[in-house]
Amino acid sequence: MHLTVLGLLAGALTTFSFLPQVWRTIRTRSARDLSWVWIVMMSVGIGAWLAYGILGDDLPVIVANGITLLLVATLGVLKASQEKISTAS
Amino acid sequence: MHLTVLGLLAGALTTFSFLPQVWRTIRTRSARDLSWVWIVMMSVGIGAWLAYGILGDDLPVIVANGITLLLVATLGVLKASQEKISTAS
Repeated sequence: MHLTVLGLLAGALTTFSFLPQVWRTIRTRSARDLSWVWIVMMSVGIGAWLAYGILGDDLPVIVANGITLLLVATLGVLKASQEKISTAS
Repeated sequence: MHLTVLGLLAGALTTFSFLPQVWRTIRTRSARDLSWVWIVMMSVGIGAWLAYGILGDDLPVIVANGITLLLVATLGVLKASQEKISTAS
């Protein structure tokens, strides 16, 4: 049980450390400092960790990477929508 | 065996996605866009994942978070040394 709590704590810290980046991208409406290489590498990497957690029945790994994948996907959507706007104007 | 390979692949992707940030900080000699809150949260979070991996005897979690902890620690050292230089000049 303690190990699960440790894993959930670790996941909370590393997942929440993405929030300032997502918040700054929303507030400034600018995702220029995010590269598509980084977004794709993180999405595939976190997706693989999520599969690893599901196959290994590892709750902390599933929860942390599930939420982080949503955050990174949000950054991808923001970047795509901003690039669409700037090419349209 | 396949699960370990999946975990090591996931770890390689999420760990290597830190390299551009570390490289840019070294090249530009500027860590201004990195906050101490982010560095501390990531260090404690990744340290907790490392402990989680060691206690759970989980090789991919140990390897990925061990290397990532070194990268984040490098960012912290770079930021501290650059702040020392700017206050001295």
